[in-house]
Amino acid sequence: MTFIKSEIRSGVYYDSAVLMKLQRSLIDLPGVLDAGVVMATEANKDLLAQADLLTDDIKAAGVNDLAIVVKGGSEEAAQSALQKVDELIAARRGEGVSQEYRSQSIESAAKRLPSAGWVLVSVPGRYAAGVTREALGMNKHVFLYSDNVPLEDEISLKQEAAQKGLLVMGPDCGTAIVNGVGLGFANKVRRGPIGLVAASGTGLQQVTVRIHQMGGGVTHALGTGGRDLSEAVNAVTARQALDLLRRDPDTRVIVLVSKPPSPKVAGELIEAARQAGKPVVVDFIGYATAMRRMDNVTFVTTFDEAAELAVQLSKTGAQKEDDFNPAPFAPEQRYLRGLFSGGTLAYEAQLVLREYLPAVYSNAPLSKELRLKDSLTSQEHTLIDLGEDEFTVGRLHPMMDNDLRIRRLEKEAADPEVAVILLDVVLGYGAHPNPAGELAPAIAKVRRAAAENGRHLEVVAVVSGTDEDPQNMAEQVRALKEAGAVVETSNDAAARRVGRLLRALNPQGPTAPSAFAEVNLSAIKEPLAAINVGLESFTVSLAAQKAEVIHVDWRPPAGGNERLANILARMKSKT
Amino acid sequence: MTFIKSEIRSGVYYDSAVLMKLQRSLIDLPGVLDAGVVMATEANKDLLAQADLLTDDIKAAGVNDLAIVVKGGSEEAAQSALQKVDELIAARRGEGVSQEYRSQSIESAAKRLPSAGWVLVSVPGRYAAGVTREALGMNKHVFLYSDNVPLEDEISLKQEAAQKGLLVMGPDCGTAIVNGVGLGFANKVRRGPIGLVAASGTGLQQVTVRIHQMGGGVTHALGTGGRDLSEAVNAVTARQALDLLRRDPDTRVIVLVSKPPSPKVAGELIEAARQAGKPVVVDFIGYATAMRRMDNVTFVTTFDEAAELAVQLSKTGAQKEDDFNPAPFAPEQRYLRGLFSGGTLAYEAQLVLREYLPAVYSNAPLSKELRLKDSLTSQEHTLIDLGEDEFTVGRLHPMMDNDLRIRRLEKEAADPEVAVILLDVVLGYGAHPNPAGELAPAIAKVRRAAAENGRHLEVVAVVSGTDEDPQNMAEQVRALKEAGAVVETSNDAAARRVGRLLRALNPQGPTAPSAFAEVNLSAIKEPLAAINVGLESFTVSLAAQKAEVIHVDWRPPAGGNERLANILARMKSKT
Repeated sequence: MTFIKSEIRSGVYYDSAVLMKLQRSLIDLPGVLDAGVVMATEANKDLLAQADLLTDDIKAAGVNDLAIVVKGGSEEAAQSALQKVDELIAARRGEGVSQEYRSQSIESAAKRLPSAGWVLVSVPGRYAAGVTREALGMNKHVFLYSDNVPLEDEISLKQEAAQKGLLVMGPDCGTAIVNGVGLGFANKVRRGPIGLVAASGTGLQQVTVRIHQMGGGVTHALGTGGRDLSEAVNAVTARQALDLLRRDPDTRVIVLVSKPPSPKVAGELIEAARQAGKPVVVDFIGYATAMRRMDNVTFVTTFDEAAELAVQLSKTGAQKEDDFNPAPFAPEQRYLRGLFSGGTLAYEAQLVLREYLPAVYSNAPLSKELRLKDSLTSQEHTLIDLGEDEFTVGRLHPMMDNDLRIRRLEKEAADPEVAVILLDVVLGYGAHPNPAGELAPAIAKVRRAAAENGRHLEVVAVVSGTDEDPQNMAEQVRALKEAGAVVETSNDAAARRVGRLLRALNPQGPTAPSAFAEVNLSAIKEPLAAINVGLESFTVSLAAQKAEVIHVDWRPPAGGNERLANILARMKSKT
Repeated sequence: MTFIKSEIRSGVYYDSAVLMKLQRSLIDLPGVLDAGVVMATEANKDLLAQADLLTDDIKAAGVNDLAIVVKGGSEEAAQSALQKVDELIAARRGEGVSQEYRSQSIESAAKRLPSAGWVLVSVPGRYAAGVTREALGMNKHVFLYSDNVPLEDEISLKQEAAQKGLLVMGPDCGTAIVNGVGLGFANKVRRGPIGLVAASGTGLQQVTVRIHQMGGGVTHALGTGGRDLSEAVNAVTARQALDLLRRDPDTRVIVLVSKPPSPKVAGELIEAARQAGKPVVVDFIGYATAMRRMDNVTFVTTFDEAAELAVQLSKTGAQKEDDFNPAPFAPEQRYLRGLFSGGTLAYEAQLVLREYLPAVYSNAPLSKELRLKDSLTSQEHTLIDLGEDEFTVGRLHPMMDNDLRIRRLEKEAADPEVAVILLDVVLGYGAHPNPAGELAPAIAKVRRAAAENGRHLEVVAVVSGTDEDPQNMAEQVRALKEAGAVVETSNDAAARRVGRLLRALNPQGPTAPSAFAEVNLSAIKEPLAAINVGLESFTVSLAAQKAEVIHVDWRPPAGGNERLANILARMKSKT
C-alpha cells in the first residue's frame, strides 16, 4: 500500500538545481518511496503520471506552479516529508558559492568586477531575454545558456549585439571555451591552434574532446546556439565568431560545426570560410556535399572526422596556394574554354569549377540549364567534351585524332574575351602516339597570336598518363611546357587551379554586406572574467578554472508574478 | 582565291582510322589548303561549314554517305587531290597489322585462337549490337568500345550476357585493364592489389594513373559503359564486375567510379559494396552523400581522392571490424533504445544509424516522418534526446541530473524486444560531478534483471570527456565497464558499433535477387587472349602488350547497304 501526497506552490521561484536537490532530499527521507519536484507543465505531468506520482491537485495546476509530490509507504511518512520542504530547501541552498562572490544584481556585480567582459545567463527561458538585454546595455558579451527563449527575442538580441560589436552565444548555448576557460558545459582540453565555431553543444564538446584525445589543442570554442544558422537568425553569431577566429593570430585551423543550415546561410558561411585565409573544416552534420574540398575548406561528415582532420591540418599547416597575377590579362579577358577529349574528365572538371564560377556551359553539362545552345559555339565559360557521340560518328575519338580539337582551339583562342584554355591530354595504349607533337605547336601558335594582340592566354593541360605509357610522358610534358602550357597530372588539381585563376579574374561581390560592428579581439584574448546569472554550478566551475566571477542571486522580477513584472518593466522603460 | 571540290561516296565503308589518314594525306598534297573526310551527319556538316568546307553536294548527302572535300589554292590542285583518293586509301590501309594476325570473320578468328575469351568491338554503333550478339553466341566476353549504340540493344545484350555468365563492358566503354592487359584506351600501370569498376572511361584512366603515380598498383580495371548505372540498364555489368572483384583473391581494395547513378541503383550497389568484405572506395562523381563512410565503404568526391584513399587502404589493409555473436540475445530482442543527454550527439548518432536501420524514431528526429508519436513512449528503434526543451522546463539538463534518464532506462530495459541501449555520458565542467556513480548501478541493475528473464541486454556508453576533466574519466569508464557497459570515446564509433550489431539482429533481405549466372573468375585470371573487330590500333596495342590477338577484317553486312543487310539478317535468323 502506498500513499501519495502533493503540494502546489504558486508564484514562487527556485532554480532547477534547488528543485533537483529537494527531490533528492525528499527521496532520502525515511519511509519515502519516490518523490517529484517539478514545474507543472504538461510534459512534466505526463512524466509524473508514468512514475505514478500524478495527483488531482497537480493535474489542476499550471505551468507557473511548482508541484511537490511524495509517495510514502505510509500516509504519515508522505505527510511528514512534505512538511520538511522548507527546511530542506534552506539547508541545501547556496551550498556552492560563498557570500563574498555574490551580488544581488548584474549592475552591482559589474561594479565589483569591472573587468568582467562576459555575462552568463541561465535563468528560465521566459526571463532570459530581459537579463541578456540588460547585459548588452552594459556592453557585456553574453553566454546565453537558457533554452525555451522565443525566436523573436533571439533575433532582436543578436541584431542589437551585432550593432554594438558584442556577442550573444545562444540561446540554448550549452558550451564554449573562451581563452582557455570553459563556460556552461565544457571539457578541459589542451590549448593549441584549433579554433571552433558551433551551433551545437555536445557536438562542439565531442569535437574538442576528440581533438584533445588525438593530441591536438584548442584556442577557442565559440557556441552560437542551435538556431543561429537558421534563415531567420541569419547566422549572426556564427559570422561574428568566424570573423574573430579569422583575425585571431593564434588560431591556425578553424572548425565549423552545425546541424544542416538553410542553403542560403550555408552558402554565405562557406563563402566566408573560403575567405578566412586559414584551413576551415566544416561539419554541417547530415548536409550532403558533392565536393569534399574547395581550396581551404574541407567538408567532413562526423565529429570524429572533424577532429582528426583539424589535428592533422594544425600539424601540417595550410597547403600553399598559388597567387595569381591578373596583370598580364587584357581587361576584357575573363572566360574559360575547356576542350576535353575525356568525357568523365570533362564532367569532373565542371563539378570542381562549379565551386568557383556561377555557370559553366557545356555540350555535356552538369544540368540542363547549362547546356550550350550550339555545341559548336561557346558562350561565356564553356567546357566542351569532344568525345561526345555527336562528334564521333564516322570520326576517330579525339584521344586518337587531334584535328577537331586543334581547329576549335584556334577558334577559342581568337576570342578576345577568353583568358584560359583547359585541355586534357590522355596518354596510354590506344591513344594518339604523340598528342603533344600536334597540340604543343598549336598551343604555341595561338599563344603567340594572342600576345601579338596584347593578350595573355593561359593554357592549362592535364596530362593523364604514366611513366610506363608508350608515349613517353616526360617528353609529352616537356613539349607542352615548352609551348607555354601549364601542366598538371591531376584533373582535380588542374580544375582547381583554373578555378582560382578565373575567380580572381571574375571577382565575386562581398557576401552579406555586414552592418555589424567588428567584435574586438579582446573578447577572446583577455583573461576571462564573468558575471553569472542563474545556475550556481556555473559559478563554481568558473572559480574552479581560476576565472574571476561574481554570482548574481537572481530572482524573477516581482517574485515571478508575471503581471506585476510586466507593469514594472513598462515603468522602467519609461524612465 | 580558293577552290573547293567535293565527292560523295554512298554505300561504302571505311573505318574511322582510314578516314582520318585519308584526310591527313589529302592535306599534305601540294596546293591543298584544307580537307575533310567525314560521314555526312548534320553535326559533321556544321563542322565542315565552320571550316568553310561545306559544298552543295555535301549539304544534300545523308548520314550513310561519305563526304570527301578538298580546298585548294587552285582548281587543279583540288581536283587532282580528289582523284588520288583511292590511291591514298590503298597506300595507308592495313599499315598496322600484318596478314598472319588477320581473319575475315569472328568465327574463323575463334578457330585460329581458341583461347580467346574476349572479343573487342569497335565497329560503327549501328553494327555493334549485331557483332556483340555474335560474340556472346560463341561464349566470349565482350569489350564494346562502339558508341552510338541504342539503349534497347544495350539492355538486351547485357541481359543475355548475364544469363550466360558473360560480361559486356560497354557500349561506349573506352577502357579496361584485364589481368594486366589494357583494352581500348588504357594506361600502363603497375600491378597491385587495387581493383576498379567504372562507368567512366577517362575517369577510370585518371584513377589508375594517379594510383600508379602514388606508388600503388592495379589488379583489374573493369569498364561498364557510361549508361550501365542508369535505371534502365540496372547496373548489370557493374554488379558482375563488383562480384568478380569481391571473389578475386588478389584484389584487396575495390574502387567504384561512376557519374551519379539513379538513387535506386546507387542504393543497391552500395549495399553490394558493403557486402564485399573488402574496403570499397566509391566516387559517384557529383553525388552528394551526408555520410563519408559506412563500415568498409568510403565515399570520395574526386578521382584524386579515390586514388589516394585506395593506395592508402591497400597499404594499411582493411580496418578490422568486430564480429557480433547474436547468440546471447533472445529471439524477440531486436530493437535499439538510445537515451541521450546531448542533442547533437543524438543527431549524429541517428545520422550514422540511418545507414544501418530502416527507421530510427525520435523526439528530435532527422525528418518529420520519424517523429515519435509520444516522446515518453518508444516505438521500434528509438533514440531520445532528453535535453530537448520539452524535458527541461524547471528541470536541470540531463547532463546534470540523471533522474529522468535512469527512470527511462529502467522502462526501456524491461521491454522484451529491446536488445541494445545506447547512452552518452558527457563529462566536463558544468556536468554532473559523477555521472557513472548513478548510471553504472542502474545499468548493472537492468542488465541483471534482463538476464534473470533470459535476455542479454547490450549497453553501449559513449563517454565524451578528457583525462583532465574534473570527473576523472578513467574512473568513469571503469565504473561503466564494471556495470557491463561497452564503452566508446567516439560517438561516431559507438553509433557504428551499435549499427552493425542491430543490422546483424535485423538482417536485410538480399539486394536485387539476381538471376545472373556467376561469371567465372577465369575471365580475369587467365592470360588475356582476344579477337578484335574494328579499329586496327587496338590490335596493335594488344600485340604490343604481348597479348594474343587476332584482328578481324570487318566489313558491314552487305557492304553497308542497310536494306540488303536487313534481308540477310532475317534470312540468317530463320536458319
